[in-house]
Amino acid sequence: MSELPLLARKLDASDELAPLRDRFVLGTASDDAADAAVYLDGNSLGALPANVPDRVADVIRRQWGELRIRSWEESGWWTAPERIGDRIAPLVGAAPGQVVVGDSTSVNVFKALVAAIRMADAGRDELLVDATTFPTDGYIAESAARLTGRTLRPVTPAEVPAVLGDRTAAVLLNHVDYRTGRLHDLPGLTAAVHAAGALAVWDLCHSAGALPVGLDEHGVDLAVGCTYKYLNGGPGSPAYLYVRRELQDRFDSPLPGWNSHAEPFGMSPAYTPAPGAVRGRVGTPDILSLLALDAALDVWDGVSLTAVRAKSLALTDFFLRCVAEYTEPGRVECVTPERHAERGSQIALRCADAGEVMKRLIARGVVGDFRHPDVLRFGFTPLYVGFRDVERAARVLGEELA
Amino acid sequence: MSELPLLARKLDASDELAPLRDRFVLGTASDDAADAAVYLDGNSLGALPANVPDRVADVIRRQWGELRIRSWEESGWWTAPERIGDRIAPLVGAAPGQVVVGDSTSVNVFKALVAAIRMADAGRDELLVDATTFPTDGYIAESAARLTGRTLRPVTPAEVPAVLGDRTAAVLLNHVDYRTGRLHDLPGLTAAVHAAGALAVWDLCHSAGALPVGLDEHGVDLAVGCTYKYLNGGPGSPAYLYVRRELQDRFDSPLPGWNSHAEPFGMSPAYTPAPGAVRGRVGTPDILSLLALDAALDVWDGVSLTAVRAKSLALTDFFLRCVAEYTEPGRVECVTPERHAERGSQIALRCADAGEVMKRLIARGVVGDFRHPDVLRFGFTPLYVGFRDVERAARVLGEELA
Repeated sequence: MSELPLLARKLDASDELAPLRDRFVLGTASDDAADAAVYLDGNSLGALPANVPDRVADVIRRQWGELRIRSWEESGWWTAPERIGDRIAPLVGAAPGQVVVGDSTSVNVFKALVAAIRMADAGRDELLVDATTFPTDGYIAESAARLTGRTLRPVTPAEVPAVLGDRTAAVLLNHVDYRTGRLHDLPGLTAAVHAAGALAVWDLCHSAGALPVGLDEHGVDLAVGCTYKYLNGGPGSPAYLYVRRELQDRFDSPLPGWNSHAEPFGMSPAYTPAPGAVRGRVGTPDILSLLALDAALDVWDGVSLTAVRAKSLALTDFFLRCVAEYTEPGRVECVTPERHAERGSQIALRCADAGEVMKRLIARGVVGDFRHPDVLRFGFTPLYVGFRDVERAARVLGEELA
Repeated sequence: MSELPLLARKLDASDELAPLRDRFVLGTASDDAADAAVYLDGNSLGALPANVPDRVADVIRRQWGELRIRSWEESGWWTAPERIGDRIAPLVGAAPGQVVVGDSTSVNVFKALVAAIRMADAGRDELLVDATTFPTDGYIAESAARLTGRTLRPVTPAEVPAVLGDRTAAVLLNHVDYRTGRLHDLPGLTAAVHAAGALAVWDLCHSAGALPVGLDEHGVDLAVGCTYKYLNGGPGSPAYLYVRRELQDRFDSPLPGWNSHAEPFGMSPAYTPAPGAVRGRVGTPDILSLLALDAALDVWDGVSLTAVRAKSLALTDFFLRCVAEYTEPGRVECVTPERHAERGSQIALRCADAGEVMKRLIARGVVGDFRHPDVLRFGFTPLYVGFRDVERAARVLGEELA
């Protein structure tokens, strides 16, 4: 008999973050499963924070339904993008006034890259992009390069230091790789990019909320991230844009919508950009989704990111240990780095029949996801995943792989 | 004693659209007002449709909270942008498969303009934009011109026919002017643009849902519009993009996010655009707002746009008649055209103290809005505004102007 179930109980008992699970709705996901599902897909869609439903109901019934147009002022709708940005700021290591929420990640990647290219010296004609990144970053980078007359050069993060040079205008990197879960060296790579005189743009989709990021500390120039993974903002909730304070006056947006105007209600035909993070806004903010996110961010009250990171690593370590015990050697290959310094908050296992295996896992109440062509992804959200969840997931996985 | 209150009752009694008001939540907007407010700001933020709160609660509690990631397929989240686009299509006179919902109006203006410029002959180096339009269209047009190396030429809609020529790549016009409420000649201007060999892009923010648009009938090339005015989608609800079927294969998006890929889950580093309206998508769709809009669109079931237009004109005619009777001659100047063919669904009155007057009107439960520097705007949403509302608004206005 394995000692792992007992160990899982002990680890849960001593987990200081365990009570945070009550801040989420984690009921039965499937009528077919005997128990509540083990939800290991928070790196794709975070679970529902318990206070979101009532908050959104109030936004709809009272703020929209009763106050209507008055809510733009009285309910603080107009300033929500920067106010909520300031709530995300500490989660990514940013001082206030540098983060604004709105639009999708893809749209924010576009803003950040075109703005970065425009901040770089005119003679720098190359844009480097992480060739292993989530594809939308590459597609949008290609468009940004095309529209600004630059050349796009896809490279792996490991190749970046050698490729950087006088021609480099900006570099777009992903902090944690969406497929392998590899954590890239944000401080080191940012320093290398700066040493070459270029700008560093980071995509934080798979790191923010799972580990400390330290944007200010490491001098990152621009960053973007989604809010529906470890920030639990809900399906397709708006993304955010970080522009380092020293660069804000030079932020020249390719999407200068009226919300980024210094006097948006002046209705002037001449564009004058607002100072600060507001300059990253575009059109009318999507209030229902923004305020759902606002409510979702309450789960971070009093939470230490150091503790989150420690638990995240403990969860992934324990998962790897359980998989090693429950699964026949060689049946899966772990593509997530073993070294803590290179690991995000997910474990990716490769096997030829990954698509079929994931279907069977989900049917048995262990919810991860499949990434084409052969990767099983398991995301570990420290705020609501426990060690018993991990043990059960690895045990069911072992059974299905047998 | 004026006969107008009695006439208003008669007009309400014979109004075939009057029962539609029950499809909305129109309770007390202000504790200060004795009666429920007269809401004449639906051209800025549409009132809350009655079935939205329960629908959104289900999306949050069941689809997100219980099904979680499974909802992308099982709850139809993934295809919502084009499915809801097909629900908007008949409201703008479009056959299915040409409208997609997502992003803000400003972002869609950017997509439409860059795509239109790329569809035009390479030698055409001018982009014409309505100089009187809502400013964001001009700001975004300037950016689109800058990024594609074209020259932006702001002109009034009346000047367009004379200015069109071999240099014109595309023309961006607003169907109804946000300030004056003037309805521009979409069929005639579109034909003139086509005769010059250019592409016609229309902004429908202030017309869709208030009058028939006829995109297919008049051969419009591309169009955008918001959904939070006459379509009642909620504050900042996502906008839509129309691309005429014949042009879809040539739609070359400046924002080629992964959602517009032919195989989005193939995760290929090479971008291959999807066919059809899907090509206008960018990033992950904002599901809460999209599905609130989906519910809001139910109010259109069985509604004839011809009847909507007839009532809209009857409401604005009646308002002008009431204002003429209740207000001292010369106290306000009507800047909305008198001719029906040139009138949208709002009345704009100019007076030097418009800002102060609107504050007093709102305090008395008559909610319109103020547009800098001297315009009182009153929007008439035929689905929920009645003739008694109109008479009361004009009467209170007359009292406040006296």
